[in-house]
Amino acid sequence: MINSNNYCVIMSGGIGSRFWPYSRKDLPKQFLDFFGTGQSLIQQTYDRYCKVVPQENVFVITNIRYKELVQQQLPQLSEDHILLEPTRRNTAPCIAWASMHIQQLNPEANIIVAPSDHLILKETEFINSLSKGLEFVSQSPQLLTLGIKPNRPETEYGYIQIDEHLAGDFYKVKTFIEKPELEFAKVLIESGEFYWNSGIFVWNVKTILDTFKEIMPEIIQWIAKGEEGFASCPNISIDYGIMEKANNVHVQLCDFGWADLGTWNSLHEVAPKDMNQNVSTHGNVLLYNCHNNMIAAPNGKLVVLQDLENYLIADTENVLLICKKDDKNAIRKYVNDVQVKLGEDYI
Amino acid sequence: MINSNNYCVIMSGGIGSRFWPYSRKDLPKQFLDFFGTGQSLIQQTYDRYCKVVPQENVFVITNIRYKELVQQQLPQLSEDHILLEPTRRNTAPCIAWASMHIQQLNPEANIIVAPSDHLILKETEFINSLSKGLEFVSQSPQLLTLGIKPNRPETEYGYIQIDEHLAGDFYKVKTFIEKPELEFAKVLIESGEFYWNSGIFVWNVKTILDTFKEIMPEIIQWIAKGEEGFASCPNISIDYGIMEKANNVHVQLCDFGWADLGTWNSLHEVAPKDMNQNVSTHGNVLLYNCHNNMIAAPNGKLVVLQDLENYLIADTENVLLICKKDDKNAIRKYVNDVQVKLGEDYI
Repeated sequence: MINSNNYCVIMSGGIGSRFWPYSRKDLPKQFLDFFGTGQSLIQQTYDRYCKVVPQENVFVITNIRYKELVQQQLPQLSEDHILLEPTRRNTAPCIAWASMHIQQLNPEANIIVAPSDHLILKETEFINSLSKGLEFVSQSPQLLTLGIKPNRPETEYGYIQIDEHLAGDFYKVKTFIEKPELEFAKVLIESGEFYWNSGIFVWNVKTILDTFKEIMPEIIQWIAKGEEGFASCPNISIDYGIMEKANNVHVQLCDFGWADLGTWNSLHEVAPKDMNQNVSTHGNVLLYNCHNNMIAAPNGKLVVLQDLENYLIADTENVLLICKKDDKNAIRKYVNDVQVKLGEDYI
Repeated sequence: MINSNNYCVIMSGGIGSRFWPYSRKDLPKQFLDFFGTGQSLIQQTYDRYCKVVPQENVFVITNIRYKELVQQQLPQLSEDHILLEPTRRNTAPCIAWASMHIQQLNPEANIIVAPSDHLILKETEFINSLSKGLEFVSQSPQLLTLGIKPNRPETEYGYIQIDEHLAGDFYKVKTFIEKPELEFAKVLIESGEFYWNSGIFVWNVKTILDTFKEIMPEIIQWIAKGEEGFASCPNISIDYGIMEKANNVHVQLCDFGWADLGTWNSLHEVAPKDMNQNVSTHGNVLLYNCHNNMIAAPNGKLVVLQDLENYLIADTENVLLICKKDDKNAIRKYVNDVQVKLGEDYI
């Protein structure tokens, strides 16, 4: 059942600065165990994809500064399965490079490209969907993105509008919309035509590289030159650089309990709550008249809170952050202020 | 100038539970350096009284569980100058015992009895006042308490009403009032007859022991029996047991920048504030739209706060407490809840 032509590339080079002070420049969020399950997000992701493609076909691409973290957390991954980006260049160059690498190993490869920081609750449905997606792209030169049926007007996600129905769960894509304002998000949801863009892609290696050659040939040319060439690539996302421009883009409608853990708010959204909608990442919490807070603290630390509503309380060994949970831009601003005023020690 | 008949007893057996989570059962507030000056409250207190009486006449009385803490923090204090209470019995038995001990060393002794957790800002005035007080009690069999001119209707302090003027700063005491409600405190202040009761007492050893023999003879009898006798003493304060009942009580009006660091609020009251009335006990604090907060965190920890007003944020290695700064009874309740639910580890 597991097809040796099927590959997976886990992208793990992000910083996750919106999860500061938990994510740090030397320990981004994908390496953290947010739920106290004993596994970091990247460990969960790796195990998940090993159930979809042969383990020896799972690759991790990350920034060179996270090489040791990947090796520590995924000791079963051989060194030649870790692709190290010399510099940060967003997802388009990252995916082009991984695709060229895999094409040399297997020119027939079908590839799943996936972020390392997603929460997936329904694993059986997930495995079924990905298997169907791989089957689809092995037979048709399409770029496939996985769309998730939305359950709320989330403003932190991108949306995909579906076009004509192809077959089964597969639709042609009409357009992409990035993080809408709340009122607009409500309209999108009500239309019934919009799905969350999961950021998980599936395609045949020839399809994606042909599309790169057509739309962004310079990226292929730069990467062919090796490490220095990679640094010369434009800093551009696969969504903006390829998916929004290509005309062979399809979406597969999925429902496997997906969440993108992009922000503290998204973690609050998916985590178990007490009767007052408070979420805490560990047990020793005493709350008095507290509602709808997100609380993260080190193991063993006792947190006692009174009269707080809609706050994020994130306590680490050397940083305590308390801010409004719904203030989207707050954390980026604070990280920037901390860097300017106090240097790198705290970020 | 320094009189060898003059003694000082520093009382240092309190728990200071209203300063939790900074004060802990094994490290009460008098052993903490709240202001980051390099000296704990008891170290400051000891140095201060060494300028008023001969160093060899300064005694510390504390609970037996704090013996090592006192020895560590006051290594210059010889072992026979530390009196160890076997059990906690409030200030009346504590003072009776210390007085009996000093009487055996010097039956002429004039004794200052002082808590170990006061802040004194004007040291010269302090030394002058105490010297005058010692002179006063050496010549007259009076129980002297130091009264502080109030600058606000503080509800956490006791008040003394002055009666007829004796001489200089000395007045007979009319009555004592314990921690008044705010409206009542305002009335007391406006009358001009009320002073804060500092809890610093001065008397001749014979005067205080004669008063004990008259009003609470059982305490003297129990303590004469030794350690087991001490445990049999009633749990009663010197204020309630002696000062409010004796008829030879005088007050000396003083002004030496005094504060009783009884609560986080009192620390906030006296500490330097930023332009928004925030106080923090260390430097690495970034505040956004925050007003009138009291912030305590370990050295080196960065604290970033947004949209908080009138909160106490007290962060220690294993406890984070965030509560309304003005909720007087909150901390005692929390300490009790923590003890019941989580045991002794956090208190």
